[in-house]
Amino acid sequence: MKKTSKYISAGHPPDSIVFIGDKKMDKPEMVLYKLGNGFQSENIESVSMLKKEIDTGNIHWLHCNGVSDVDMLKELGNLYKIHPLILADIANTEHSPKIEFLGEQIFLEIRAISYNEQSSEIDSEQVSFILGGNYLLSFLEKDNNCFKSIIERYSSNVSKSTPSPGFIIYSLFDSIVDSYYQILEKIGEDIEEVEDVILAKPTPAELERIHIIKRNLIFMRKAIWPLREIIRRLEVEGADLLDTASGLYIRDLYEHIIQIIDTVETQRELIAEILDVYLSSVSYKLNEIMRVLTVISTIFMPLTFISSIYGMNFKFMPELDWRLSYPIVMITMFVLGLGMLYLFRKKGWFYELRIKN
Amino acid sequence: MKKTSKYISAGHPPDSIVFIGDKKMDKPEMVLYKLGNGFQSENIESVSMLKKEIDTGNIHWLHCNGVSDVDMLKELGNLYKIHPLILADIANTEHSPKIEFLGEQIFLEIRAISYNEQSSEIDSEQVSFILGGNYLLSFLEKDNNCFKSIIERYSSNVSKSTPSPGFIIYSLFDSIVDSYYQILEKIGEDIEEVEDVILAKPTPAELERIHIIKRNLIFMRKAIWPLREIIRRLEVEGADLLDTASGLYIRDLYEHIIQIIDTVETQRELIAEILDVYLSSVSYKLNEIMRVLTVISTIFMPLTFISSIYGMNFKFMPELDWRLSYPIVMITMFVLGLGMLYLFRKKGWFYELRIKN
Amino acid sequence: MKKTSKYISAGHPPDSIVFIGDKKMDKPEMVLYKLGNGFQSENIESVSMLKKEIDTGNIHWLHCNGVSDVDMLKELGNLYKIHPLILADIANTEHSPKIEFLGEQIFLEIRAISYNEQSSEIDSEQVSFILGGNYLLSFLEKDNNCFKSIIERYSSNVSKSTPSPGFIIYSLFDSIVDSYYQILEKIGEDIEEVEDVILAKPTPAELERIHIIKRNLIFMRKAIWPLREIIRRLEVEGADLLDTASGLYIRDLYEHIIQIIDTVETQRELIAEILDVYLSSVSYKLNEIMRVLTVISTIFMPLTFISSIYGMNFKFMPELDWRLSYPIVMITMFVLGLGMLYLFRKKGWFYELRIKN
Amino acid sequence: MKKTSKYISAGHPPDSIVFIGDKKMDKPEMVLYKLGNGFQSENIESVSMLKKEIDTGNIHWLHCNGVSDVDMLKELGNLYKIHPLILADIANTEHSPKIEFLGEQIFLEIRAISYNEQSSEIDSEQVSFILGGNYLLSFLEKDNNCFKSIIERYSSNVSKSTPSPGFIIYSLFDSIVDSYYQILEKIGEDIEEVEDVILAKPTPAELERIHIIKRNLIFMRKAIWPLREIIRRLEVEGADLLDTASGLYIRDLYEHIIQIIDTVETQRELIAEILDVYLSSVSYKLNEIMRVLTVISTIFMPLTFISSIYGMNFKFMPELDWRLSYPIVMITMFVLGLGMLYLFRKKGWFYELRIKN
Amino acid sequence: MKKTSKYISAGHPPDSIVFIGDKKMDKPEMVLYKLGNGFQSENIESVSMLKKEIDTGNIHWLHCNGVSDVDMLKELGNLYKIHPLILADIANTEHSPKIEFLGEQIFLEIRAISYNEQSSEIDSEQVSFILGGNYLLSFLEKDNNCFKSIIERYSSNVSKSTPSPGFIIYSLFDSIVDSYYQILEKIGEDIEEVEDVILAKPTPAELERIHIIKRNLIFMRKAIWPLREIIRRLEVEGADLLDTASGLYIRDLYEHIIQIIDTVETQRELIAEILDVYLSSVSYKLNEIMRVLTVISTIFMPLTFISSIYGMNFKFMPELDWRLSYPIVMITMFVLGLGMLYLFRKKGWFYELRIKN
Repeated sequence: MKKTSKYISAGHPPDSIVFIGDKKMDKPEMVLYKLGNGFQSENIESVSMLKKEIDTGNIHWLHCNGVSDVDMLKELGNLYKIHPLILADIANTEHSPKIEFLGEQIFLEIRAISYNEQSSEIDSEQVSFILGGNYLLSFLEKDNNCFKSIIERYSSNVSKSTPSPGFIIYSLFDSIVDSYYQILEKIGEDIEEVEDVILAKPTPAELERIHIIKRNLIFMRKAIWPLREIIRRLEVEGADLLDTASGLYIRDLYEHIIQIIDTVETQRELIAEILDVYLSSVSYKLNEIMRVLTVISTIFMPLTFISSIYGMNFKFMPELDWRLSYPIVMITMFVLGLGMLYLFRKKGWFYELRIKN
Repeated sequence: MKKTSKYISAGHPPDSIVFIGDKKMDKPEMVLYKLGNGFQSENIESVSMLKKEIDTGNIHWLHCNGVSDVDMLKELGNLYKIHPLILADIANTEHSPKIEFLGEQIFLEIRAISYNEQSSEIDSEQVSFILGGNYLLSFLEKDNNCFKSIIERYSSNVSKSTPSPGFIIYSLFDSIVDSYYQILEKIGEDIEEVEDVILAKPTPAELERIHIIKRNLIFMRKAIWPLREIIRRLEVEGADLLDTASGLYIRDLYEHIIQIIDTVETQRELIAEILDVYLSSVSYKLNEIMRVLTVISTIFMPLTFISSIYGMNFKFMPELDWRLSYPIVMITMFVLGLGMLYLFRKKGWFYELRIKN
Repeated sequence: MKKTSKYISAGHPPDSIVFIGDKKMDKPEMVLYKLGNGFQSENIESVSMLKKEIDTGNIHWLHCNGVSDVDMLKELGNLYKIHPLILADIANTEHSPKIEFLGEQIFLEIRAISYNEQSSEIDSEQVSFILGGNYLLSFLEKDNNCFKSIIERYSSNVSKSTPSPGFIIYSLFDSIVDSYYQILEKIGEDIEEVEDVILAKPTPAELERIHIIKRNLIFMRKAIWPLREIIRRLEVEGADLLDTASGLYIRDLYEHIIQIIDTVETQRELIAEILDVYLSSVSYKLNEIMRVLTVISTIFMPLTFISSIYGMNFKFMPELDWRLSYPIVMITMFVLGLGMLYLFRKKGWFYELRIKN
Repeated sequence: MKKTSKYISAGHPPDSIVFIGDKKMDKPEMVLYKLGNGFQSENIESVSMLKKEIDTGNIHWLHCNGVSDVDMLKELGNLYKIHPLILADIANTEHSPKIEFLGEQIFLEIRAISYNEQSSEIDSEQVSFILGGNYLLSFLEKDNNCFKSIIERYSSNVSKSTPSPGFIIYSLFDSIVDSYYQILEKIGEDIEEVEDVILAKPTPAELERIHIIKRNLIFMRKAIWPLREIIRRLEVEGADLLDTASGLYIRDLYEHIIQIIDTVETQRELIAEILDVYLSSVSYKLNEIMRVLTVISTIFMPLTFISSIYGMNFKFMPELDWRLSYPIVMITMFVLGLGMLYLFRKKGWFYELRIKN
Repeated sequence: MKKTSKYISAGHPPDSIVFIGDKKMDKPEMVLYKLGNGFQSENIESVSMLKKEIDTGNIHWLHCNGVSDVDMLKELGNLYKIHPLILADIANTEHSPKIEFLGEQIFLEIRAISYNEQSSEIDSEQVSFILGGNYLLSFLEKDNNCFKSIIERYSSNVSKSTPSPGFIIYSLFDSIVDSYYQILEKIGEDIEEVEDVILAKPTPAELERIHIIKRNLIFMRKAIWPLREIIRRLEVEGADLLDTASGLYIRDLYEHIIQIIDTVETQRELIAEILDVYLSSVSYKLNEIMRVLTVISTIFMPLTFISSIYGMNFKFMPELDWRLSYPIVMITMFVLGLGMLYLFRKKGWFYELRIKN
C-alpha cells in the first residue's frame, strides 16, 4: 500500500516540495471553470495560460487531476501565492485530513475513499482545496466520481445561478461524505455475509474476509476521524467563506460525519464480536472432534487388546481349548463396548454429538 | 438489516429528499389532533386538507405513520416551512438521534426500539418531531405502541386539561424511554438464561444466543448514547418549549437515560464475561477429554504391543512352549496396567476425572 | 436477580408511582425519632399519626423500613410536599444513586450493599433520604445493619448533644461507605483464595468462583461509581445542609469513595489477570497431555506394526523359520523404541515432562 | 496481603481513630530533630517530653517509626491540634496517597515501595507528613532506607545551612520517587528475563513470573497514579510552603512521576504482549505435537490393519498359500507408507516439522 | 536495553548530576559554530576555550557529541548559568521528552530514533537543546545522521543568510521528526511482510517478528507521544524564540507529529489484528489436523478390531472353517469403511479437508 518513499523528504529543508505517494497519473490535467458567468470550462495546458484569467479578476475554479508534477505545483504556488508548506502538503498524498486558515486563503485536505469490488479492499485518494478571495483550486490524485457528478450537475444546470467557490467546496465535501455511506454499506453487507457463513460453517476463507474488513475499517477510521474537528473549525471560523446560507448545512455535514464515525465504530464492534464467535465455534468443534476420537479409541482399544490376547501363540493357554471360550469372549467384548457407550451417554457426550449432527 | 440504498443519496444535491430505509407501510396515514378544545381527532387524506386548520391558528398535532412518501413530505415542508435538510433527515430512517433548534422550530429525532420475541432480535424505528409555535408534527415509520397508549390516555381523559404540544413531546419521549427498560429487562432475562445454561452444559446454541445478545446491545447503545446529549441540550435550550412546570421532568428523563446507558454497559460487561466463562469451560473440557484419551491409549497401547509380540509366528520362540508363559505374561500386563493407573492417579488426572463426573 | 416488572411503568404517565423491585417486607414499618429533645423513638402505625408531630414544628427523623406500600408513600408525599417524581424514584428500588436539590428539600438515593456468605454473591438495597428544613425522611427496602448501629449509638449516648438531621445523613452515608470496605475485603479474600488454587491446580470450580467475583465487581462498580459525582455535588451545593463543621468530613467521604473505586478497579484487573493465568495454564496442560499421548503412540504404533507383520499367517515367510529371527526382531524393536525416546528427549519433550511432575 | 480488619472501622463514628494494617513494629519510636540550630537529634520516649520543645517555638522535625499506637497518635493530635480525621488517615496504613491543605497545616500521605528479592513481590509502606508553621511531623510504618539516607546526609553535613521543614519534605518525597525507579528497573529486568526465556522455551514457571510481574505493576500503578494530582496541587497551592527556591524543583518531581507512570504503562503493555507471545507459541506447539501424532497414526494404522488381515486364521484364505503374497504385501505396505509421507510433505506438514526441530 | 543504573541517583540530593544510560562515546566532542558571520566551525578541546567566544557576545552554536562526562557538563553549566536540574536531565539519557521555559533559556529534550536493520529493533538517543539569548547548546549521546545533514547543508550553503539559533533548533527538530517517518515506513513494510506470510503459512518465526514489531511500536509511542504537548507549548510560549516567520512552521511540525501518532496507533491496531488472524488460523489448522486423525482412527480402529477377532486362536470358532467367511469379513470391513467415510462426508468434514488442500 505504501510503496513510495518518505526517505527523500528527510534531510531536505522542511518546506521542500516532494511528491510522496503512488503516481496514479502520468501528467496532471488542469481544467478551468469560469464561475462569474455561467459555468464555462477550459482545458489548461500550462500554468502560464492562467495568468490572464487571474488578471481579469473573474471568479474561477481551477481543478487539477494529478499532483505528481512538482514543478507545476511550484508555478501555481507562485501564481496564487501559496505557502511552500501548503504545496508540500498537497504533494504528500499520504497526509492526514487537515484544515488551515491562512489569512486570505483556506486550505482544506480530505480523503476520498473508493471500494475495490475485486479485492474487497478500500483505496483512498487525497483531495486538496485552496479557497481564495475569487478563486478555488482543487487537487486530486486521479479522476474521481464525486467530482465528475458535481461538475456534470453544474454544467447541465444552466438555469440555476452559478455556484460560488465556497458552495462548490461544500458540495464536493458533501458528495465525498455521502460516498463514505456507500462504502460503509458495502462493508456492512460484507459483515452480514461473513456473519451468516460463520454461524453455519466457519472456514478459513471467512477468516481472511474478516481480516480484510477489519483492515478496511482501520483505514476508514484513520481517514474520517479528523473530519469531525475539521468541520467543527469550518463551522466556527469558516462558515461565511463557504457561502452557505445558514450554519444548517455545515451542521448537517457534521452530523453525517458523526453518524459515519458511529457506524464505523459499531461495525468494528460487530466484526470483533463475529471473530469471537468464530473462535468460540472453532473451539467447540475441536471438542466435538476430540470426543468422537476419544469415544472410538476408548471403545476399540480395550476390545482389540482382549482379542489380541487370544491371538497369542502360547502352547499352554487352557481357554483356547474350551468350547465356550469364543462365545464368552465375544459376549464379554460386546457388553464391554455397550458399557462404554452407556458411560459416555451418561456423561452427556453422546447426546451432544447427536443433537449437533 | 440494511437493505435500502444510500447510493441514491450520493451524487444528489445535499438537500435532496430521498427515502432511505425499509418501506414499512404502503401509504402514510395522517391524523390531526385538535388540541385547543378537547382532544378531537380527524383523519387527513391529503395535505391540502390541513391548509384550513393552519389558517384557523388553532393549536394542533399532526401525526404521520410512514415517511416513505417523499412528495407528501415536500408538501408538508411547504406548508409548515420546514427546511429541506430537515425533511431529508425525516426521510432517512437510519439517521442517528439528533436535536436541532431552528428559530421558531425544534426538530427532534429519536429511535423507538421493540423486541422481536421470535428472533430475539431488536428492531428500531425512527421517530421525528417538529415543534412549532402552535403545532406539533410527529413522524413514525409505522404504527407504534408507545404512541397508541399516549393517544388513548389523552382521548379517554376528558376531564384533564388538554395537553400542550410540548408536553405531548415530553410524554412520548418519556414513554419511548420507558420502553427501553422493557427491552433491557428482556435482554437481562436472556443473559441470565444463557448464564445458567453455560455454567451447567455449554452448547453452541448458547454461543449463538450470546452473539445475538451482544449484537442487540451494540444496536441499543447506538440508539441510546446520543440521547444523553440531546436531553442535556433540551434542558439548557428548550425546557420552556416543552412546557414542563419545572426542570425536574427533564432531569428525570436525563437520569433515566443515564441509568439505561449504565445498564447497557453493565450488560455488555456481563455478556463479555459470560463468553469468557464459556471459552474457559470449553478449554477445560477439552483437557478432560484428552486426558481420557491419553489414559486409555497409554494403558492399552503397550499392553496390545506385548500381546502382539506373542502373536508372532516365529518357529523358534522358546517362551511359547513354556508352561508358565501365559500366566506370567497376563500378570505382567495386569501389573503394568495397574502401574499406569497408579501413575495417572499420582499425577492427579484421575482425581479430577472423578470429581468432575 | 431482576424479577419485577418495569412493564407496568411503561405506558403510565411519567409521574405515576409504581413499586419496582423485589418486595422484601410485607408491610412497611415506620419509626419516628424526635431530635429536638434527646433521642426519643416512637412507632408510627399510620401516616395520620405524624400530622400532629409536624404541626409542633419540632425537628424529627422519620425512618421507613419497606417502600412497597405505594399508598403510604403518597400520603407521606402529601404531608411533606414531596414531588411525585421523587416518590416514583423512592418506589423504584432499582434506581441508580442520585442526588437532587429541590428548593427546600435535598433528595439523596444511594445503595447499601451486603455480602451473602452462602452464595458469595452481593445483594444491594436502595436507601433514600429526604432532608427538609426540620425533618429527615429515610427509606429502606428492609432492615439494615448500618442503620441499626447508628440508631443504637445515638439512643445509648444521651450525654452527647442530639444530632442534627444533616449530621444523621452524613453518619449513615459514612457508615454505608464503610460497609463497602468490608465487602471489598471479602472479595479480596476470595480473589486471593482463587489465585492460590489456580496456580496450584486449576479446576472448573475455580472458574465459577472467578465468574461470581467478576459479576460482583461489575455490580459493585455500578452502585459506587455515581457516588463520586453525588458527593462532589454535596460538597459544592449542600455542605451547609449536612451540618458538618467543615468541608473536611465531606472530603473524607469523597476520598473513601475514590479509594473504593480504585480498589474495585484494581480487583477487576487482578481477577482478569488471574483468568488469563488460568487459561494459559490450561493451555499448557493440554500440551503436556498431548505430549504424553504422542510419545506413547509414536513409540508403540510402529512396534505393534512390526510384531503384527510376523503375526501374519502366510505360508511362505522365510524369516519365520530362521533361528535368530525372534531375537533379531526383539532387539530391533527395543532399539527402535529407545531411538524414539532419544529423539523426544533431544526435542526437549521429555525434560519438560519430568520437571513438571 | 490484607490481613487486617476494616470491620472495626465500620460502625464507629467517622472520626474514630483505628489502626488498620499489618503491625510492623511493636512500639513506635520517635526522634526529634532540632532544625533551628544545626541538626541535633534526640530520642523521645513519651509525647509529654515534646511539650517544652514546642513551647520554645524552635523549628523542629518529629519523626515517628510505627503508627500502631493509637493513644500516642491522639496525644500528638492534642499537642499539635491535628484533626481526628487526619489522625484516622495516618492510622489507616492502607490509605491511598492524598494531600490536604488545612489552614496552617499541610497533610501529605504517600507510599514508599520496596522490592522483596526473594519473592519478587513488592511491599508498600505508608508515609505521612504534617507540615505546620515551625514543625514537621513524619510517620512511617517501619524504618525505611530513604529516610535513613536523608537523615545521614543532613547529620553529617554540618557546613550546609540547616534545611527548612518544607525542604525536608521535598527531599524525602524526591528520595521516595527515586526509589520507584529502582523498582521499575528490577521489574524491567524481570520482564527481559521472562521475554528471553519465553521466546526460547516456554514453561509454566514463566507463567507464574508473568503473573507476579503483572500484579506488581497493578500495585505500583495504584500507589503512583494519585501522585500526579498531588504534586500538581503542591505546585499550585503549596510551593511556597515547601520552601523550594523556584517551581523548578516541584516540576522536576512532577516530570519524574509522569515518567514513572509512563514506564509503568509501557511495562504493562510489554508484559501483556509477552503473554500473548507465550499463548501463541503454546498454541503453535500444540499444532506441531498433533501433527507428529497424526502423521504417525495415519501411517501405521492402515499398515497395522493390513497385516492384521493376514493374521486372521480363516481356513480358506487363498492368498496365504501363494508364494509371492508375503513380498507383495510387504511392498504394498512400504509403498503405502511412502505415499502417506509424500502426501504430508506435499501438505507442508513435514517441512515445518523439519525446520522447527 | 536498560543496563545502566538509576540506583546511583537514589539517595543523592535531587540536583546531583549523574550520568544514566549506555556510555556510547568515550570522550565527548564539542564543536563551536559561529553564526554571526557565515557558518564557521571550530573544534573545542576544553570548556575554557569557550570563555572568550562568549565574551565577544557573538551568536554561536555549541554542539556536544556525548554527555557521559559529568565534569564537562558542570563546567558548561557554570559558564552558561544552566540550572543543576537541567544538567541532571541532560546527563540522564533515559529521560522522556520535555520542554522547560526558564526565563532567558528554553530547554528542550527529544529523542532521535534509528532502525537497526540487523535486529529489526529500534534504538533511541536523547537530544537536548538549550537556547539562550545569543547561543544554542545541543547535546547528543553519539553522532547522528540528522545533525550531520543539517550541518552539511548550512556549511555548504554560503549564499543563504546564516540561520538563527532558533531556526537551527526548528530545522533539527523537523529533521528528527522526518526520520520518524522512515522508521514507520520500515515498520509498515515489516507488517506487510508478516501479514502476507501469515495468511499463507504461519510459522513461529512470524510470531517473533510480530513480537519485535509490537515492542518497537510500544517504544515509538513512548518517545513520540509527549512531543504533541511539547510542540503545542512551543507554539503558545516559544514561537518567537524559534524565529520562524509565522506559526505555520510550528503547526506543520505539530501536524506531522499528529500524523505520526496516528500512524503508530494504526500500525498497533493492524499488528494486533494480524496476531488475531494468526491465532485463529492456528486454531483452525488444529481442527483440520485433528479431523484427519479422527477420520483415520475412526475408520481403522474398528476394522483392525474385527480382523483381530479372527486372529484369535480359539479351537472352537466355527466361522474359521466356513468357506465364505473370509470374503464376507472382507466385504463387511470394506462396507464399514465406506460407511464411515460417507458419514464424515455427510458431516462436512471431508469437504473441508478437500478444499483446504
